[in-house]
Formats: sequence, structure tokens, C-alpha cells
Amino acid sequence: MNRKDLFNTIQKKRSFLCVGLDTDIHKIPKHLLKTKDPIFEFNRQIVDATHDKVVAYKPNLAFYESMGDQGWISLEKTVAYIRNISKDIFIIADAKRGDIGNTSAMYARTFFDTYDFDGVTLAPYMGLDTVSPFLAYEDKWSIILVLTSNKSATDFQYVEDKESGDRLFETVLKKSSQWASTDQVMYVVGATKAEALTEIRQLVPNHFLLVPGVGAQGGSLEEVAKYGMNDHCGMLVNSSRGIIYASSDEDFAAKAGASAEEVRQEMEVHLRAKGLI
Amino acid sequence: MNRKDLFNTIQKKRSFLCVGLDTDIHKIPKHLLKTKDPIFEFNRQIVDATHDKVVAYKPNLAFYESMGDQGWISLEKTVAYIRNISKDIFIIADAKRGDIGNTSAMYARTFFDTYDFDGVTLAPYMGLDTVSPFLAYEDKWSIILVLTSNKSATDFQYVEDKESGDRLFETVLKKSSQWASTDQVMYVVGATKAEALTEIRQLVPNHFLLVPGVGAQGGSLEEVAKYGMNDHCGMLVNSSRGIIYASSDEDFAAKAGASAEEVRQEMEVHLRAKGLI
Repeated sequence: MNRKDLFNTIQKKRSFLCVGLDTDIHKIPKHLLKTKDPIFEFNRQIVDATHDKVVAYKPNLAFYESMGDQGWISLEKTVAYIRNISKDIFIIADAKRGDIGNTSAMYARTFFDTYDFDGVTLAPYMGLDTVSPFLAYEDKWSIILVLTSNKSATDFQYVEDKESGDRLFETVLKKSSQWASTDQVMYVVGATKAEALTEIRQLVPNHFLLVPGVGAQGGSLEEVAKYGMNDHCGMLVNSSRGIIYASSDEDFAAKAGASAEEVRQEMEVHLRAKGLI
Repeated sequence: MNRKDLFNTIQKKRSFLCVGLDTDIHKIPKHLLKTKDPIFEFNRQIVDATHDKVVAYKPNLAFYESMGDQGWISLEKTVAYIRNISKDIFIIADAKRGDIGNTSAMYARTFFDTYDFDGVTLAPYMGLDTVSPFLAYEDKWSIILVLTSNKSATDFQYVEDKESGDRLFETVLKKSSQWASTDQVMYVVGATKAEALTEIRQLVPNHFLLVPGVGAQGGSLEEVAKYGMNDHCGMLVNSSRGIIYASSDEDFAAKAGASAEEVRQEMEVHLRAKGLI
């Protein structure tokens, strides 16, 4: 899926919502624990209830890995289920991998061959070597951490370069935007950093941004849309807990669908205001 | 296992060797492909042949993940096998994880509860939030990337801070060494950066360092020992391909054992020269 396909889907669905599948065995409704594969069963019902309102799903790998090999089976089934229900949904492995050489190539093989993801989140600390093996896959995406939504993002991301005056996240943007086209690289920018989106858009006007942190983490969709949207939308805004855990009872899927629809409607307003639909 | 236990093992085995289990289905001897679990079978024979010469093993998670859920089964069996053969071997998940909040907590649960690792490699880009959930586990280690052995390490790790003049890897060292004691934090410093070890030792004289890059990547054990060793050794030097792929025939385990012994003997010389054994 390239940038144009992604924008087409956004226009068609009038949504730029990504739902984070942070599926935690300790948080899903109790009645699901009786099923054979509770993690998959939860995801299946969430996907059924939300797929027409979203452009992307983002399974958070930590939650699957914590279940051991069974978690990876649930993950594989989830990806296959999404693929089967709709051809135009973008699936992100929120893995935040970052390694080099043959190890990095192995991660690319994992997420793009063994599992059928469209994109993977990557940490840039080790530089280009971290990303290059992923770029060998056409129509697949490297989604690079830039400015994250957490408190200690300031520990290193704001370090100012003595030579250029750029903060580290700006250096990451400037360098990495030279590594590949806007059809292969996206950036993670936390919604709690909406004020920085203006500066980020000056550096990467055409890239897609993956924006977590709306909802539970306190980011505002309105501000994110205001400062971050470009002429092909250029953003996927993620919500996890606010949608998938909208209810902890048997009505969890219906409530998730309603929450997703509420966010989608707000997104539609922003897309219209920008003249994109 | 704390820092003192680790030094005791180093003294007893006269070795500070860590063997990287970068077990690749495409590289292991062909005759193993007939076994039920070739990845585990390879690891089992490597461990049998090397465990008395090493203080640590470091499975590289990418190689296991690329095999899907079966890879995680092989990994779990490998960790259990090492634990069973010897109580005093340090096992590192080379995972380079780096996330925040409940996701980071989930990764800590994965590697310290679901799997029985002693330490995990972590990427520092997102700051303290990445590390703090791992610190809640006593006698377990966060092994933080500082200065890596790859070419593009210079992309960001050498960015100089406008205020302090420190390069990013120094800033990471200075900040993160305040987060926990020397019994819970180690640093990854590539062997190809031996000349930087002197500066690193000034900043963190007492921390253990995990040093990859000796062998295939061109680092020199002699230089690493010269610049990096402290009064309790303070380093685990990793070799992967040079040992586990010493032969691609049926004699692979014996050859791996011989290669490990060769490195161990050189390590013994350095430990003696430093008066540590």
C-alpha cells in the first residue's frame, strides 16, 4: 500500500483512525477467558465492530509477546482475520525494533514475510542501518520514532545539536527523510506534542505521521488535525484503550464500535474543514 | 544475578565470553533440518560444547521471531536448557526493545516472567520511561544501547549537545547511570569503538559493558580489554558468528567449542594481566 492508496482509503472511509490492539489478557472481558484463544477472540470482535470506521490497526507486539508462543499465534490469526475482512486496511506492527545488518534484515523478514504487516515502528538510535533492510520491501513502511508522547521523551529527543541548533528529533527527521521516499517512511509523533507539529510539518510536509496519544494519554484530536494535517491528510491518529476498552462487559465490541464511530465523525469534520473530502 | 555474582563466575571460568545465539535456519548445518526442532537442536549442541567456556549466552530475538510462534518455542526451550545445564550462566535477550508505560511493563513481564532471562537490551531513544519497568525486577538487568558497532552509529550517537558539549552517547551514559545502581544497568558499547572506551570508563567506571563486534565485525579483543576492563572485569564480550558458525558441517559443535576455548584462553591472559585471577 503506497501513500496514494492510503489517502484513497482515508477519503472513502472519511476517517484517519488507527485502532491500537493493545490486547491484555488481564483487561479483556472475563467471559472471553472461556474461549480457546481469548486474545484472538477479543480482537476478532473488535475488528468486526470497527473495521468500517478505521483505516489502520496497530497490534502492540509487547502484549502478544508476553503470552509466549501462544501470543504470536493470536497475532498471526489477527492479521489474517483483518486481511480477510478487508483488503484496504493498513496493519502496523508496533514493535519499535532497532537493530543492524543481518539482525535488522531478520526483523524485516519477520514482519513483512512471516507476518503480513504493512509497516513496522522502528527506533532510530542506531541510524540508517536500522531502517535500510526494511526499505528493500516495496509498498511496505518504516515508521520511525521522532517525538514521542511520554514524559521522558525530553531526556534525549530535545538535545540540541551544537552545530546545527537542531533538537535530536529534528536531526532524526532531516537525516531520515533523505533515506527513502514518502511512500516508504512515516514518523511517530505523539499527540501530546501537538505544538511541535507545525515545526515538524515544515521539515516533512509530505510524510505521513502516526500519531498516538489521543485519548488516554491526553492529546487533542483537534489540535493534532489543526497543526499536522496536510493536503493528503498525512496522518493516522491512533487510539487504543479509549476504544478497545470502552466497556469491560459483554457489550465491549458494540461499545468499541460506538467509540470508534464517535472519533471517526470528529475526523470527518476535520477532513471536510480541510477540503479533503 | 548481581554484579558480584557475575564477577565470581568470570573468575571461576577465567572467561568473560558471551556467545550470541544468532541461530539462522538458513545457516545451520543441513543435517539438523531433519530434526523436529532444528533451531533448538543447534542451540542445544552449541551449549553442550561451549557452556564451560562462557559466562553468558545472548539469543538474538530477531532470529527466533522470524520463525513465527515456533521460533518462540525454540527460544523458550533454549533458555530452559541453559538454566538446566548450569545455574551460573547469564542469559541476555538481545531484543533492543524500547517503549513506554504499560507497553514497557509488558516487555519486562515477557522477558523476566514469561521467559527466564537475566537481562534485556534496550534502546534509550524514549528516555527513562523505557527502562523504569525493567528496574522493578531485582537481580535483573537493563542493558542500554550507548555506542554501537555499526557504520551508521554516527548518524545520531555522535550528535554534540549544544549546552554540555557531550555527544549523545555520553548524554545517555550520564543520565541513565543516575537511574539505577550498577547491579541493574549495563551498557552496550561496540568493540569497533575501542578508542571510545577510555572516555566511557571515565563516565561509568563501575558498570558492566556488553561488547559486541569482536570477530566478524572487526573489533579487537586486546584493545577492548585494554581500554574497557575494570577491577571486576566489568565486561562481557560477545562473539556470535565466529563461534556458532565455525563450521557448517556435522562437526559444528566441536568446532564451536574449540573456537570458544580459543577466545576464552585469550581472555584468561587479559584477566591475569589485570591481576583479576
